[in-house]
Amino acid sequence: MAGAPQLDGFFSKVDELTPKFIERLAAAVAIPSISAEDARRPDVVRMGHFLESELKALGAEVELRPLGKQPGKEHLDLPPVVVARYGNDKSKRTILVYGHYDVQPAEKSDGWNTEPFELTVKEDGKMLGRGSTDDKGPVLGWLNAIEAHQKAGVDFPVNLLMCFEGMEEYGSEGLDDFIIAEKDKYFKDADAVCISDNYWLGTEKPCLTYGLRGCNYYSIEVSGPGADLHSGVFGGTAQEPMTDLVRVMGSLVDTHGKIQIPGIMEQVAPLTKEEETLYDGISFTMDNIHESLGSKTTIFEDKKSTLMGRWRYPSLSLHGIEGAYSQPGAKTVIPAKVIGKFSIRTVPDMDIDTTNECVAKYVKEQFAKLGSKNTLKVYPQHTGKWWVASPKHWNFSAAAKAVERVWGVAPDFTREGGSIPVTLTFEQATGKNVLLLPMGSSTDGAHSINEKLDKRNYVEGIKLLGAYLHYVAAEPTS
Amino acid sequence: MAGAPQLDGFFSKVDELTPKFIERLAAAVAIPSISAEDARRPDVVRMGHFLESELKALGAEVELRPLGKQPGKEHLDLPPVVVARYGNDKSKRTILVYGHYDVQPAEKSDGWNTEPFELTVKEDGKMLGRGSTDDKGPVLGWLNAIEAHQKAGVDFPVNLLMCFEGMEEYGSEGLDDFIIAEKDKYFKDADAVCISDNYWLGTEKPCLTYGLRGCNYYSIEVSGPGADLHSGVFGGTAQEPMTDLVRVMGSLVDTHGKIQIPGIMEQVAPLTKEEETLYDGISFTMDNIHESLGSKTTIFEDKKSTLMGRWRYPSLSLHGIEGAYSQPGAKTVIPAKVIGKFSIRTVPDMDIDTTNECVAKYVKEQFAKLGSKNTLKVYPQHTGKWWVASPKHWNFSAAAKAVERVWGVAPDFTREGGSIPVTLTFEQATGKNVLLLPMGSSTDGAHSINEKLDKRNYVEGIKLLGAYLHYVAAEPTS
Repeated sequence: MAGAPQLDGFFSKVDELTPKFIERLAAAVAIPSISAEDARRPDVVRMGHFLESELKALGAEVELRPLGKQPGKEHLDLPPVVVARYGNDKSKRTILVYGHYDVQPAEKSDGWNTEPFELTVKEDGKMLGRGSTDDKGPVLGWLNAIEAHQKAGVDFPVNLLMCFEGMEEYGSEGLDDFIIAEKDKYFKDADAVCISDNYWLGTEKPCLTYGLRGCNYYSIEVSGPGADLHSGVFGGTAQEPMTDLVRVMGSLVDTHGKIQIPGIMEQVAPLTKEEETLYDGISFTMDNIHESLGSKTTIFEDKKSTLMGRWRYPSLSLHGIEGAYSQPGAKTVIPAKVIGKFSIRTVPDMDIDTTNECVAKYVKEQFAKLGSKNTLKVYPQHTGKWWVASPKHWNFSAAAKAVERVWGVAPDFTREGGSIPVTLTFEQATGKNVLLLPMGSSTDGAHSINEKLDKRNYVEGIKLLGAYLHYVAAEPTS
Repeated sequence: MAGAPQLDGFFSKVDELTPKFIERLAAAVAIPSISAEDARRPDVVRMGHFLESELKALGAEVELRPLGKQPGKEHLDLPPVVVARYGNDKSKRTILVYGHYDVQPAEKSDGWNTEPFELTVKEDGKMLGRGSTDDKGPVLGWLNAIEAHQKAGVDFPVNLLMCFEGMEEYGSEGLDDFIIAEKDKYFKDADAVCISDNYWLGTEKPCLTYGLRGCNYYSIEVSGPGADLHSGVFGGTAQEPMTDLVRVMGSLVDTHGKIQIPGIMEQVAPLTKEEETLYDGISFTMDNIHESLGSKTTIFEDKKSTLMGRWRYPSLSLHGIEGAYSQPGAKTVIPAKVIGKFSIRTVPDMDIDTTNECVAKYVKEQFAKLGSKNTLKVYPQHTGKWWVASPKHWNFSAAAKAVERVWGVAPDFTREGGSIPVTLTFEQATGKNVLLLPMGSSTDGAHSINEKLDKRNYVEGIKLLGAYLHYVAAEPTS
């Protein structure tokens, strides 16, 4: 463990190899590894083999680990997890990195300006293609960093363990069990974990992400009649489940996002002075959110409240109603059974069981007030814990130094409003610090048409991943 | 115009011809004249030709009137209206009857116990088959009545104008314009109108129907963001259209059916003592509604309030939400634009424009209370007036006497909660009294699987239609 790492040789080699690295990304984008479409499963597997072959060529030890049949689709094998080790020097730190090689669906006819499975590099540096930023660019970033070290003759600063899955866009089927099973085997040596599968908060300033909200998803079921009814015949004589459900759903949250369920906000960790000051420096404006919303219908008028609303406070969203009439047009049905769906994004120090109890109690109370003869059920469909890491750990301070070195600016320390469940799984399985280190920017459109990765973010991102590993090697234990 | 008609010869001929009349119904049921399915359009037309040929064989003058292309499906011709005249004696009254020869969709796999397009006559008299009761049985009832008169050598007591359409189960496309265009031509001579296309209130007692509720169908549209949002990213920062919509929809009506919109109940005609006493004698019990509901979740606990809730008071039903998540499972979407659907069943003396104004005003007020930045629209999708005829007209008193003669019991005078828009069109176009004279019973399951017509209702129904025409001929002008 020494002072500031020597990185110039590595950096200039990355610049020199850029055309080759873009070709590698183009080859990966050309494989339509869509995990949600059964017919594309062979392409997902082909993408796993592509990674295996590229890794082997770089001298890594690679294994394709089968995950068995896909639950609910037993005619389909899950694509393998590609695990690899590069370096096995006991005197070096070992970093476990995660990424995924499957992509979201895409069809030219969805509205793409280019062929989605042909990487198109524009003059302004936009590299368009499905998977360019989510997550083939970042995954290949690790491979490119290895190659640039080799060709520059620079010693690789750590042992790298890699875990690349092929089902991330379809709920990471089978992965949790695999991670837990391998925690004392393949992943035993990991000193820290790094995941590059999220995005900058904006377009100009890199960030390190240390927190994610959890998500508890609930159903409220109201039923009465034996079958759907005609409103001409039964309107005015039957108590309608839809009336009851809408009244109960209307009592959960208000227009300004205020959750009406007692016992939720009470669980939220108080805001400390220290945390509050973190928000001031973050590169984010109300224009940013208005642009991404496509409207000015925000709850708050200031940056700090908006970021807190996204990151550190819970929110409650009503998603829809199953069983009611949802088509265009006019149908005069009285639905016999309706299921309202809503979710609560959870934050420190909310407890899943306590939250479930508060929800069930409140919903039952609201329904009881109606004096209805209909039948109510309320239950969680799935729950997931929030995640917050310590941004003071050496894993983060190494990454922060790497950002300053590559981008010339100190990163924002951010959280995210959504959940990336594998983050928590890696933390819980390995017991090590997990860092989210994004490569792409907020405008990449990961799940949209015209997904892109900026050439600058790809090239500087490869440098950042390599530099991060050097600072990891140099950082004292915190 | 003389005293009680001689009907014994006609009645015994109906009994004698019953096997033939059942064969005629079986031949009609065998033609799958489903108006909602494009591929079945030739079968609908075939059914029109079947009626034409049967009517011609009975000596009626028949015309098939084209209605042009189907709106929105210009590759499809609408099936023709079959109009026919039987008798042209200026000294007789002329009765215009309406029915429809198309049917609801049906597949054995929907849960039918028998082939839907094969009439199956059970030992208990149930005649199962799609269209048996809705509306092929009643339509053929008129033809059978003519044939029985001919074979019994009984003079037909009136001139009969018939109007049988082939699109009733698909919104009667084109029919209103046709009726209005023919009011002073084909339908000019009509002295009264009789429609047999509804059902008894129960299973044992015939009824005559003199009123229907109207239906105003509304949409409430709330929009904000430019596209659907992820609740992880935007939950807690954006004002959600779904939250606003559910709150507004929840303010329209309560569990007990009480409409919360000012100005609606104020328009309802006061209940007179005379009307109130009508309800006492009606054959209907709470067990009946519990059975048809499949539950005990009624608003009221007594018969009179229940019948009034269905017939003479308005009701408001929430049907569903377009644009929100409506599938099984869990999706964490914040819908960008949601459209709530609800309808109000209208009654005398409600005015369509006044009702629309009350709805728009109230919905806007409720939305304004939320203090939301989202955008609201509220508008009627379609409106339709209620209909109430005078049950004291000779058309009704003739039918009442015919019911007593055939069934040995005075009919219930009923209204219905639903709408049959053609009723109002015939009344407005001809300016004559319209009677709804049902053949089938409440358990026939017109739009359900295992639709049936009881043999007793078919045979006595043929007698009833014929007897009604004799009493019409005998009834003094009222």
